[in-house]
Amino acid sequence: MATDNNRFQAIISHCKEYGFIFQSSEIYDGLSAVYDYGQWGSELKKNIRDYWWKSMTQMHENIVGIDAAIFMHPTTWKASGHVDNFSDPMIDNKDSKKRYRVDHLIEAKADELEKEGKKADADALLAEMDKLLAANDYEGLKKLIEDRKIKCTVSGTGNWTEVRQFNLMFSTQLGSVSEEASEIYLRPETAQGIFVNFLNVQKTGRMKIPFGIAQTGKAFRNEIVARQFIFRMREFEQMEMQFFIRPGSQKEWYEYWKEERMKWHLSLGIPKEKFRFHDHVKLAHYADAACDIEYEFPIGFKELEGIHSRTDFDLRNHQEYSKKKMQYFDSEINQNYIPYVVETSVGLDRTFMMILSEAYTEEDLSTADKQDSRVVLKIPPKLAPIKLAVLPLVKKDGLPEIAREIMDDCKSHFRCFYEEKDTIGKRYRRMDAIGTPFCITVDKQTKEDGTVTIRHRDSMQQDRIPATQVRELVQKHIG
Amino acid sequence: MATDNNRFQAIISHCKEYGFIFQSSEIYDGLSAVYDYGQWGSELKKNIRDYWWKSMTQMHENIVGIDAAIFMHPTTWKASGHVDNFSDPMIDNKDSKKRYRVDHLIEAKADELEKEGKKADADALLAEMDKLLAANDYEGLKKLIEDRKIKCTVSGTGNWTEVRQFNLMFSTQLGSVSEEASEIYLRPETAQGIFVNFLNVQKTGRMKIPFGIAQTGKAFRNEIVARQFIFRMREFEQMEMQFFIRPGSQKEWYEYWKEERMKWHLSLGIPKEKFRFHDHVKLAHYADAACDIEYEFPIGFKELEGIHSRTDFDLRNHQEYSKKKMQYFDSEINQNYIPYVVETSVGLDRTFMMILSEAYTEEDLSTADKQDSRVVLKIPPKLAPIKLAVLPLVKKDGLPEIAREIMDDCKSHFRCFYEEKDTIGKRYRRMDAIGTPFCITVDKQTKEDGTVTIRHRDSMQQDRIPATQVRELVQKHIG
Repeated sequence: MATDNNRFQAIISHCKEYGFIFQSSEIYDGLSAVYDYGQWGSELKKNIRDYWWKSMTQMHENIVGIDAAIFMHPTTWKASGHVDNFSDPMIDNKDSKKRYRVDHLIEAKADELEKEGKKADADALLAEMDKLLAANDYEGLKKLIEDRKIKCTVSGTGNWTEVRQFNLMFSTQLGSVSEEASEIYLRPETAQGIFVNFLNVQKTGRMKIPFGIAQTGKAFRNEIVARQFIFRMREFEQMEMQFFIRPGSQKEWYEYWKEERMKWHLSLGIPKEKFRFHDHVKLAHYADAACDIEYEFPIGFKELEGIHSRTDFDLRNHQEYSKKKMQYFDSEINQNYIPYVVETSVGLDRTFMMILSEAYTEEDLSTADKQDSRVVLKIPPKLAPIKLAVLPLVKKDGLPEIAREIMDDCKSHFRCFYEEKDTIGKRYRRMDAIGTPFCITVDKQTKEDGTVTIRHRDSMQQDRIPATQVRELVQKHIG
Repeated sequence: MATDNNRFQAIISHCKEYGFIFQSSEIYDGLSAVYDYGQWGSELKKNIRDYWWKSMTQMHENIVGIDAAIFMHPTTWKASGHVDNFSDPMIDNKDSKKRYRVDHLIEAKADELEKEGKKADADALLAEMDKLLAANDYEGLKKLIEDRKIKCTVSGTGNWTEVRQFNLMFSTQLGSVSEEASEIYLRPETAQGIFVNFLNVQKTGRMKIPFGIAQTGKAFRNEIVARQFIFRMREFEQMEMQFFIRPGSQKEWYEYWKEERMKWHLSLGIPKEKFRFHDHVKLAHYADAACDIEYEFPIGFKELEGIHSRTDFDLRNHQEYSKKKMQYFDSEINQNYIPYVVETSVGLDRTFMMILSEAYTEEDLSTADKQDSRVVLKIPPKLAPIKLAVLPLVKKDGLPEIAREIMDDCKSHFRCFYEEKDTIGKRYRRMDAIGTPFCITVDKQTKEDGTVTIRHRDSMQQDRIPATQVRELVQKHIG
């Protein structure tokens, strides 16, 4: 399927209109690449997070969770490689204010030269660039750009700022103005909170390899090009699990977790053909195997989750920087070693977007007599923000009282919604639009025989069932 | 009861030893006033958060949640008063590196003068200080300190830095090195995320006053004196609810929420006498009534939750700064108004500490024959990290297989723990130490009559019940 920008835009509008996602600080005209989850979005997001947490921890005896702080000791990010490697030399054009990655800018010039038949010159340019980059010679890089008369594509000028390192980590000062203040970072990933706590969890939890540590939480990246709604945000939430294993078994566990995580996505009722694995050809410095699980969003196949065989890269570096032994004694083989790690890392916001992309449905309900349509979110019932709407047909004749009794029977078990205003048709449509799987209507017949109408969201089918069976029926579907 | 520092220290040690709380980045010698929640702490913290969320949203039809970002537009904090009021002028002594609040330093000098009988001089000093503070005249303040020969109590010198404003908000740069970069803050409270979204939630959720918006999430304060374990952290988590009401009804709702929130704390099984209300005499600039719910921690009565009648302070200021009308049309009385707000704001970390303080019990179990003791966490079952431990008495004779069947019956309903190593007594003690309310032991008799021993954590009483009844019994106690 080609990308469908209209559908993507329709989903974004729906998110705003029905209280799923608002632009951050919208009354102040927003904050770029930051979003807030509204009254139904926050419930859906929480339900996804809880479902992941339960799947990963409660359902796996050998996986425990942690909740590490966003602030970490700055040396953490030296050991992880983020201080040195999570940045690029950038240059700004003073006239257009457009920012470029220096290597992109020079490579574009080399491409141009090659097209003009000046292959040797292009190669010389790239060789010179590589030398300067390796030496972190920013003055030299700026001089190269100026000497080669490289221009900004927007302003057309060669009026450049200095070349500067642009690290994607946000920094702040702990302790503020004083001499004792230290620069710390907002974590760019949650994984390191797990690695620095590896020894504590392993020892106090008496964990035996293989075992995992799971975590959900915020991470922050000062993305230069942040866009596509909640796909690439500057503040986002990850759901990560680091699985600690015996060196040499990484291939087997990598395959295991690829399959397990795919099963998890399929458990959300999404068709298999909407997913694909994308193996990384160019591996990150810490990995010996890596792939993405991609989902076909309305804007095309995009990364949803990463499965990475991280070797002992992280623990070994933390050992080096902290001088604390990151060793595990494996009593089965009577050996000490630094464990290897297979990581599963999924974006909570992207999973949210996947659920909405899959759920969002415009249906034409027109008949010969009249035109009609609806927008319905076919969210899996276990993830739906509201599970049950309780609707008295009219606001009199004792119907609200009966509806209240049903609410009281159900509301401590799952999120219910009560509404007595407007026609029943309008109320159904509003519940469709936020993905409520079940509506029950209390009417005159309820007073006679104790039955209510239950309406199923996706099929719009209506059945009569005893009011006393409502709770159990809903629980069966959301369990 | 006097403060009990030994007990407090014992709880802190227990938190570390049993995987509840670790110092952040401990392998790098920690980060001041920041902590990580370990494998059982993260579960307890999550259970408290979920219980609050359910109590506030699911159980209240007229309260919905949101999940706003930590990053907000910087004007938010001008409107809220945090840019101007959430700071103090500070001065550092260059020799001792000790930092002082300027007003504290000068007031101490005035006290000294008064003790020496120089009342008029002391008054003149304070009057001069007030004038300079009002004018934000930092040079004048420094000169005053020097002229009056005010010395550092540690170094004894008058070798001072410049006077500088120390705002407790952490700041960072969004967009980084470029001219377009803007300074933003990490939110010092979650409340403002609710206020800036008030219109969006009210309109898209069709909310009618009175209604509430609830939120849990991280907040950050660059505390100068951060201490007392997780009581005053630089990164902490709040659970807040803003209740929007008709102006004039604030007294009634303030009393309502004081009582409701106290009921919530009592629902955790904590005795009434461990709580007290502390009315604020000096009100914050935004409040027309305010009190704390204090709990008697081992270090004395301390603030746990705040109930504040915030009037229309926040919405009115956001209206002024954003030029967006923060009005609500009340169809019952046919009037437009800016709603008043009553806030309930409780610290998740402090609630965690309360639960542990209440639960932590050292018991002497000695008999005439032998000395014995245990440490048990009497955590309310609904909040306990693990609900059920399944323990085969021995690792043979088919007992592990039966235990596995019980695990399979239970583990999708609540967090279970399986262990087959060590004596049963040691295993019970370990479960006591992390607060597991129920242990069941599978033994030879299980093979004969299908019963297991269930052991109750607090009473240590043991009963035999059919294995098939285990799940229901546990569910009854945690429901």
